[in-house]
Amino acid sequence: MMQKQWRLAARPEGIPDRSHFSLTDAPIPALQPGKAVAKTLYLGVAPVMLRYMRNETEFESPLALGTVMPGRGVAQIIESNCDSLHVGAIVQARLGWQEYALIDDSDHPAPFLLPTDLPLSHGIGAVSLSGITALVGVRDIGRVAPTDRILVSGAAGGVGSHVAEIAKALGAHEVVGIAGGSAKCARLRHDMAYDHVIDYKNEDVDLALSALFPEGIDLYFDNVGGALLDNVLARLRRRARIVICGSISEYLTEAENKHHFINLQNLGRQDAKMEGFFVFDYQDSYPQCLHQLATWVREGALNPVEDISHGIETLPDALADLYLGNNVGVRMVEVGQPDLPL
Amino acid sequence: MMQKQWRLAARPEGIPDRSHFSLTDAPIPALQPGKAVAKTLYLGVAPVMLRYMRNETEFESPLALGTVMPGRGVAQIIESNCDSLHVGAIVQARLGWQEYALIDDSDHPAPFLLPTDLPLSHGIGAVSLSGITALVGVRDIGRVAPTDRILVSGAAGGVGSHVAEIAKALGAHEVVGIAGGSAKCARLRHDMAYDHVIDYKNEDVDLALSALFPEGIDLYFDNVGGALLDNVLARLRRRARIVICGSISEYLTEAENKHHFINLQNLGRQDAKMEGFFVFDYQDSYPQCLHQLATWVREGALNPVEDISHGIETLPDALADLYLGNNVGVRMVEVGQPDLPL
Repeated sequence: MMQKQWRLAARPEGIPDRSHFSLTDAPIPALQPGKAVAKTLYLGVAPVMLRYMRNETEFESPLALGTVMPGRGVAQIIESNCDSLHVGAIVQARLGWQEYALIDDSDHPAPFLLPTDLPLSHGIGAVSLSGITALVGVRDIGRVAPTDRILVSGAAGGVGSHVAEIAKALGAHEVVGIAGGSAKCARLRHDMAYDHVIDYKNEDVDLALSALFPEGIDLYFDNVGGALLDNVLARLRRRARIVICGSISEYLTEAENKHHFINLQNLGRQDAKMEGFFVFDYQDSYPQCLHQLATWVREGALNPVEDISHGIETLPDALADLYLGNNVGVRMVEVGQPDLPL
Repeated sequence: MMQKQWRLAARPEGIPDRSHFSLTDAPIPALQPGKAVAKTLYLGVAPVMLRYMRNETEFESPLALGTVMPGRGVAQIIESNCDSLHVGAIVQARLGWQEYALIDDSDHPAPFLLPTDLPLSHGIGAVSLSGITALVGVRDIGRVAPTDRILVSGAAGGVGSHVAEIAKALGAHEVVGIAGGSAKCARLRHDMAYDHVIDYKNEDVDLALSALFPEGIDLYFDNVGGALLDNVLARLRRRARIVICGSISEYLTEAENKHHFINLQNLGRQDAKMEGFFVFDYQDSYPQCLHQLATWVREGALNPVEDISHGIETLPDALADLYLGNNVGVRMVEVGQPDLPL
């Protein structure tokens, strides 16, 4: 039995496209002792993948040309020699860009079971790492408080699309989001619980920030970095918190176009905090976070916006969409359907 | 009975000097209900005072010309109508630049009692706010760990002079300090427990940092800001912490000479944290901190370096020394002697 896999074919300089990958056939893996065979249902894409492709990160082992692209997704266990992964289980795991994967529970982070009463696609987004990222960022790094004036950049993105709802579930009154384009901004307002939206493609961001935050910003959930971060630094209130979740603007331009920050000293002036974080460092709190996120989805407090394309063939385009700003909500690919009852 | 007081006479543009103050005579205050009369023994100076003088801070009420300069110090209670401040007690309190002050325990932060088995001058420095600042910064903000590679700027200053000893008392193995001038650097090594010293006036700081931190920096206790902070940002290890304690270089030049930071995105890249803090926000932990600091002094783990001039007349020079970089250790002025037995 054969399956399809996407392998790294070339290292991209700018935005990755199909030419950087090759779609190949390979046998479906045979079961091994202590392992399980997982059938891929959904695969996610993440900005950091460009770093893997460029071999720039220390978090993954070097990604040689010809390797199956790494990536996490939702899968159903179809064969198992692993006590913790029973046949039929729906798991979130490191699968790679392929239709079937051989996995085990010694992986790091370990595969985790997903609730089956929710849409399985949530196992890519809200009830998975992007939800945990938003929750850890807002609650543990950002320490959101009810009176906070909150700004979120990249608000339509995979993480940003959850932030307003999560902040409100934690007691926040009002959240402002920034995104590019009127269609995205409409989605922010209607589907993602943002109270005010700044369209950076069609508005003067500086004027809009002054109008929306006349007394400054308490909590900034930063998904973009760069000039906007510098602008926010100038607007910090006392004991403000900046959560640096990602800087997609810098993945593409870091070598040639470093932003010169002129307002950094305001961090000390305002006794404020700026903190980058990597969700894999918070694995101890995954079970608690997943339980909380699933509960909010069931209660209707969290209504994930997902941006799903169908077929493993669409994976390179799904990844490119992140850097092109084409996605609204959590971008993912539906690769297969469960074979066994849930 | 008369006393001497220093009043603000003019707002300084650059480094404050005697011309910005006037030394005046005033009556020693009479006791009032609920209050106590304190005789000033030591007064401290702090970089932030320049902001008070320029009326730039929101932490103090506006400082009108002609007002007695605010400032904290060590005093003995000589008359009291206040239950918590008994006659003879040695306290750390907001006294102002004067020989006698009327104080009460509703002040914010409240006066606190000092141990009398230690040199009373420590009530300005190590067993007081500069010690607490170093301790909160290293322990609570910096979360020092035994394996941390640690750098301290402004290491000869009032706070920096305590940092290496405190970090080691908390388990650190090695601490590197930066200061200006060979005499100061010798004191860092011999009297302040710094293992390695960089003399920024006589060395290439960039080369020295590369030599001393070949694998990067885990914890940076920043007392200066500016270009050095930017250099450190480029050298962060994973999950590094930058404690922004003060930026004395920026008190003098903020309007005209903002540093352009080019390495800020490394904070997100390395999942690092940069946090400014104001010790007054940590009042709940003052008692625990003071107990810890006094214990370390008694045990010989903390050996405060103090830089004391004698006579209230020397206060403007003491303050100027901070910006001129003339002080080694905690700069303070001895204003009087206790009248009553301790």
